[in-house]
Amino acid sequence: MGIGNIFKAFQPKDKVFFVLFEKVAATLTQMSKEFHEGLMDFDINDDTMLKNMSDYEHKLDDLTHEIFVQLGENFITPFDREDISHLASGLDDIADYMYASAKYIYLYKTPLDPAYTEFSLLIYKSCVEIQTAMNNLKDFKNPKGVKESCIKINSYENIADDVLSQAIVKLFETNDAINVIKIKSVLEYLEIVTDKAEDVANTMDSIVIKYA
Amino acid sequence: MGIGNIFKAFQPKDKVFFVLFEKVAATLTQMSKEFHEGLMDFDINDDTMLKNMSDYEHKLDDLTHEIFVQLGENFITPFDREDISHLASGLDDIADYMYASAKYIYLYKTPLDPAYTEFSLLIYKSCVEIQTAMNNLKDFKNPKGVKESCIKINSYENIADDVLSQAIVKLFETNDAINVIKIKSVLEYLEIVTDKAEDVANTMDSIVIKYA
Amino acid sequence: MGIGNIFKAFQPKDKVFFVLFEKVAATLTQMSKEFHEGLMDFDINDDTMLKNMSDYEHKLDDLTHEIFVQLGENFITPFDREDISHLASGLDDIADYMYASAKYIYLYKTPLDPAYTEFSLLIYKSCVEIQTAMNNLKDFKNPKGVKESCIKINSYENIADDVLSQAIVKLFETNDAINVIKIKSVLEYLEIVTDKAEDVANTMDSIVIKYA
Repeated sequence: MGIGNIFKAFQPKDKVFFVLFEKVAATLTQMSKEFHEGLMDFDINDDTMLKNMSDYEHKLDDLTHEIFVQLGENFITPFDREDISHLASGLDDIADYMYASAKYIYLYKTPLDPAYTEFSLLIYKSCVEIQTAMNNLKDFKNPKGVKESCIKINSYENIADDVLSQAIVKLFETNDAINVIKIKSVLEYLEIVTDKAEDVANTMDSIVIKYA
Repeated sequence: MGIGNIFKAFQPKDKVFFVLFEKVAATLTQMSKEFHEGLMDFDINDDTMLKNMSDYEHKLDDLTHEIFVQLGENFITPFDREDISHLASGLDDIADYMYASAKYIYLYKTPLDPAYTEFSLLIYKSCVEIQTAMNNLKDFKNPKGVKESCIKINSYENIADDVLSQAIVKLFETNDAINVIKIKSVLEYLEIVTDKAEDVANTMDSIVIKYA
Repeated sequence: MGIGNIFKAFQPKDKVFFVLFEKVAATLTQMSKEFHEGLMDFDINDDTMLKNMSDYEHKLDDLTHEIFVQLGENFITPFDREDISHLASGLDDIADYMYASAKYIYLYKTPLDPAYTEFSLLIYKSCVEIQTAMNNLKDFKNPKGVKESCIKINSYENIADDVLSQAIVKLFETNDAINVIKIKSVLEYLEIVTDKAEDVANTMDSIVIKYA
């Protein structure tokens, strides 16, 4: 029995991580799609979108917890335990800050800033690339594809930085301090979502450098 | 000499981490108790509470430094070095943000927001559970007890999230922008304390999953 | 061939990390010098300083990426992979938040707060100490020197904490909410730079404890 066969013997247990990460990524894509559509067609009197965001956030909490349980139980992992842990926390953070953004948009009841949907589109595109990258990361079948997605996610985060600073400059022109505080805080939550997507991209990139 | 005996031979050095973590947890409980009592009976002209918070923060800095010194000197640790490091930093963060909350409450001299004592009670309860969990983590004697405390700490953090958003919504009703900026920033420091307690709970939970 | 010789055989590959970290530290010192000088002699109509900060930030992004590429390719590292990764991210964060501070100083076009140059001097001094420490860390030739620099960086961060709280208290005396929001946010970015320098110091300190 060669090393390759020994490796294959461990695969079934090992595979659970790829399966869970793919579920997380697919759920995030769906969550970000509904977040973006909800903001494109926003109605403060209909909180369906907020309830959906809360449901997705709970679902992702459960999946994240399952990854940590598997990490505790499995001696064999497809890549560094530390990277699995970073990846799981980073993906969970994306969901947490997307939900927080939605929550404060509803709580503050201010008119939507035009930058909100610019952000939600960048967030949706980032989640689509995370899902693509996760699929390409599976069994390390397409390292180049992972790298390409990570570059795109990094570029979305750079655009988000500019969206934030331009939106804040315009916001100050209203000279309405209460309004500035509310909308600036929502814009900052939205920008953190893209930061967390970049963290996930950096972790996936470093996994590919090590193993592929 | 069996594996069990070899393990026992290393125990004395190894024990130092449990002893230090228990000291940290006991100090945090005491600190959070005085923080809560200080806010329940607040007097802006008496800065005894602030001085006490500063003393506790220094004491916890010293204990944290001692844990890192021991981590450098000991080859044998009772659980992953990475987890010891996360746990020590997380506990130190709780003290840092509790002190920062106290500092800005005194600096801003604004009337106390009713949410302050809701937070300080949640912080105190979280620290009590951290202390209980740390005692149950010692020698991995009661993994189930650790898990129960972690679940409680997570639930306190969820409550703190709601306390924050409800307090901010009420705060905006005052329509006093300067006041909003001051109190919102104290509320956010207080909420970070509960976030840090949740980080500590998640680390303890993952240690128990791995070793118990 | 003794252990010492085996170790030396690996040195050439291993050395790349010290070389890269020294380049990063030297670049950060230069960046922080120009940042401080730019603020000492600030002219809102001349954005040379901002362009320089952006160039430095890109240069440090490239160096950081190179460290992670080397980390993926080298099996042998001079100290824990985890510490190399923390150190690289921490140094990159210093550049990111220094650039962000500069960006918002230009965007907001508010008169400079006197605390800006107090911060930029503390940031410059911290970067000088990081460079000294990195040179002393190289081949672990002067552990005591590393420790001395780390203590200084920690003391600068403590001073920065006080600069922040005193500046914010004075800022509120203007009673101009829009102005408060703008300058407070710049002050907080500046303070984060010193936090990130402290993180780097703590990582260097823990490397020295382990290896020296």
